[in-house]
Amino acid sequence: MNFNKNLKDYARSIIPIYTKELIDLVKIPSISHGNKNKKDLLNILKKISKTTKKYGFKTKIIETKGNPVFVGILETGKKKPWLTIYNHLDVQPAKEKEWKTNPFKPIVKQGKVIGRGTTDDKGPALTIIHAINFLKKYNYEMPNIQLIYETEEEIGSPNFGSFLKKNKLKTPDSILISDTLFQGKNPSLTYRLRGIQVLELELETGKKELHSGVLGNAVKNPLNILIDALSKCVDEKRNVLIPGFYDNVKKIKGRELKELKNVAKRFSLKKFKDDTKAELYEENPLKLLFNIWYKPSFEIHGFEGIQYEPNVIKTSIPNKVKAKVTIRLVPGQKPKEIVKKLQKHVKKIHPKIKVITLDSVEASVTDINNKFMVKAKEACKYGFNLEPLFVATGGTIGSVHHFQKAYKKPIILIAQSLLSDGYHAPNEYFSLKQAEKGIKTMAKYINSIADFD
Amino acid sequence: MNFNKNLKDYARSIIPIYTKELIDLVKIPSISHGNKNKKDLLNILKKISKTTKKYGFKTKIIETKGNPVFVGILETGKKKPWLTIYNHLDVQPAKEKEWKTNPFKPIVKQGKVIGRGTTDDKGPALTIIHAINFLKKYNYEMPNIQLIYETEEEIGSPNFGSFLKKNKLKTPDSILISDTLFQGKNPSLTYRLRGIQVLELELETGKKELHSGVLGNAVKNPLNILIDALSKCVDEKRNVLIPGFYDNVKKIKGRELKELKNVAKRFSLKKFKDDTKAELYEENPLKLLFNIWYKPSFEIHGFEGIQYEPNVIKTSIPNKVKAKVTIRLVPGQKPKEIVKKLQKHVKKIHPKIKVITLDSVEASVTDINNKFMVKAKEACKYGFNLEPLFVATGGTIGSVHHFQKAYKKPIILIAQSLLSDGYHAPNEYFSLKQAEKGIKTMAKYINSIADFD
Repeated sequence: MNFNKNLKDYARSIIPIYTKELIDLVKIPSISHGNKNKKDLLNILKKISKTTKKYGFKTKIIETKGNPVFVGILETGKKKPWLTIYNHLDVQPAKEKEWKTNPFKPIVKQGKVIGRGTTDDKGPALTIIHAINFLKKYNYEMPNIQLIYETEEEIGSPNFGSFLKKNKLKTPDSILISDTLFQGKNPSLTYRLRGIQVLELELETGKKELHSGVLGNAVKNPLNILIDALSKCVDEKRNVLIPGFYDNVKKIKGRELKELKNVAKRFSLKKFKDDTKAELYEENPLKLLFNIWYKPSFEIHGFEGIQYEPNVIKTSIPNKVKAKVTIRLVPGQKPKEIVKKLQKHVKKIHPKIKVITLDSVEASVTDINNKFMVKAKEACKYGFNLEPLFVATGGTIGSVHHFQKAYKKPIILIAQSLLSDGYHAPNEYFSLKQAEKGIKTMAKYINSIADFD
Repeated sequence: MNFNKNLKDYARSIIPIYTKELIDLVKIPSISHGNKNKKDLLNILKKISKTTKKYGFKTKIIETKGNPVFVGILETGKKKPWLTIYNHLDVQPAKEKEWKTNPFKPIVKQGKVIGRGTTDDKGPALTIIHAINFLKKYNYEMPNIQLIYETEEEIGSPNFGSFLKKNKLKTPDSILISDTLFQGKNPSLTYRLRGIQVLELELETGKKELHSGVLGNAVKNPLNILIDALSKCVDEKRNVLIPGFYDNVKKIKGRELKELKNVAKRFSLKKFKDDTKAELYEENPLKLLFNIWYKPSFEIHGFEGIQYEPNVIKTSIPNKVKAKVTIRLVPGQKPKEIVKKLQKHVKKIHPKIKVITLDSVEASVTDINNKFMVKAKEACKYGFNLEPLFVATGGTIGSVHHFQKAYKKPIILIAQSLLSDGYHAPNEYFSLKQAEKGIKTMAKYINSIADFD
């Protein structure tokens, strides 16, 4: 049995079917933002259920406190380890006026399927199903498969942790996710993600707004005080000034440092600037990447209880103000400990500043030297025919944290999308050539870990 | 001719007529905020025109780029100096749900006229007309009179400066205004007002909002940077940190210090706390009053371009942010110079921070030892039968600045209202007893300066 030839033929010949299936998925506007499209979210799971049944999966749709989750099981009948494959079928809204076609009436043009969710994450989610179908059809080795495709990823997977806890799922030996991006032109394996603590700093110094002329300088202005406190939390070089904040942050070294240098070497500052159109804190690629991936951040997003209307300044002093903050965390930093340290710090500035904690997710990391990683790298090189890079991300994928917490098993993130596909952007597409390579990569990977546990 | 007895009788016997006239004024909802009530503003001037004609004034209503102004002239026919009397007939909105009666259907209860504008400033504006009528009726000495009653005071008199410049008005030898507050229970003469510079600090570091996870710590967050800049403009003790900010601020001493101490001695901290319901920077009365009256302030009111919606924190970094700031100025500080110093200061923090100047008004001061002041003090003691205090205010009355700039003549602010009347608050009232005393005070004052120039 010539694996390589069979896979090449399958991946090429399946594309017309794959295209039709992807179009059917994209037609369903499964937007999770705004909580108004429950029916579409259920419909997308019914659709994936129908598709996977065709390929031999046993399927169910599980309700949660939030949006439903699809689970598809394909057992090999042999004593094999369990691989859980996670992706999501909800999509971002698509109201950008730059859309040239209807985002939910996908078209195929120049080898690309264009529409909302094509690359994030319906296209990649579908390649994996065909990768598995290939292995099954030709009777190649593979682990037992459990698909978990959810519909709340784009809103931060708020119910995914409790979903994992409450349901009788197969305990995986490893987890495969395909919801990340190539690093420039290179395939990538994301082994490290920052966590997040979302919080508010609240200060109430009075019961009503007061006149800033008649009483200004006498009655406290909570906005002035919070600004003072915030300026003492982070400096202009992005160093966080909260005592003890960096206590458990490990220095990057060894393999991680080597891989970072490898990415930095290929990094195009020009392209980064063209994409972001923003001033940068740092233009040295190594330092720039380090700051996003390995350095925690303290970002201020806004305020409540203040004047925000354009072109109006009223002569009133606010009485109750909240600052909106997110702290991105790196491995080693526990959200609860960080919050405690922040609380202690801001209380020194004003004893009545309250820290109100909202969502939090710990950072995640998978050892680059892990055997699954080694196979994933080989599979990427095989399928995409380009050097794969080990990368981190400054972002947070809620499910990764929940998987790590629930199972403590290797989580492998293999990218199939490119930033230029229009991730979270208008005119999003997924190239069918990339789909073909994705099917090959995924089949190779899943086959190569068939006996790992 | 017994001046005292005649005045006492007039002030008492005119109250029923005064009450009816005040009620007619208050019935017209002459709200200047929101720019929707032009007709009411014209109507209130027509009404005051009708009333003053009855008392022998020649009247006209002058249009401006903004709201109209009433001018009433009463010449003595003798070679007398000119006294300009300024008040305003526009009122604050009255949407507070605490109103127990219809704010624009005034009632009389327990010797008080209740309704929006009764004490600010229709009641006081009307006592002066009766004070003049008294002097005219009995043929007592008085200067030539020019009433200027405008309808933009509650929105900062934005067109008053150009009104004074563009129209052929009588050049006054002094100006009388009755739009201030008693100091606690004591009559007050406001000899000093802070000025104001309204401004925005703007920083744009990018063309679009970006993802705070994927790009946070790499792309600049203009809100973080502006907060850093603002924290370097003012410290927690309300000291402004802009280099050179205090250069032309004179130390308070001599008569001013003496009068401040006199007020501080009578100051009720408890009452101040009950009224403001706010935390204070300073509880020592002398320091507290000093900070409002003699110390400039740097107040932060809000931001544009940031997240302000309750209970939502999106993972985006803003790209263009404006901070809303007012600086209250003291005599000696020129708005333009202060803005230059601020510009220079914030540019050191980020070269692209722009200072956008909006309204500005210089601080005003009238010498306490001025002969008009001496007579005003005597008149207050005579009319209100209580020790008058020389006070300053942290607030800004736009017209005072414009009068000072246009004429460089003494401006005398005699208060008739009490804070407890509900200035800018629900259930505003003006007590008829206070009106009676006001008429006596004003008549006494106007008579006593009949030959001053």
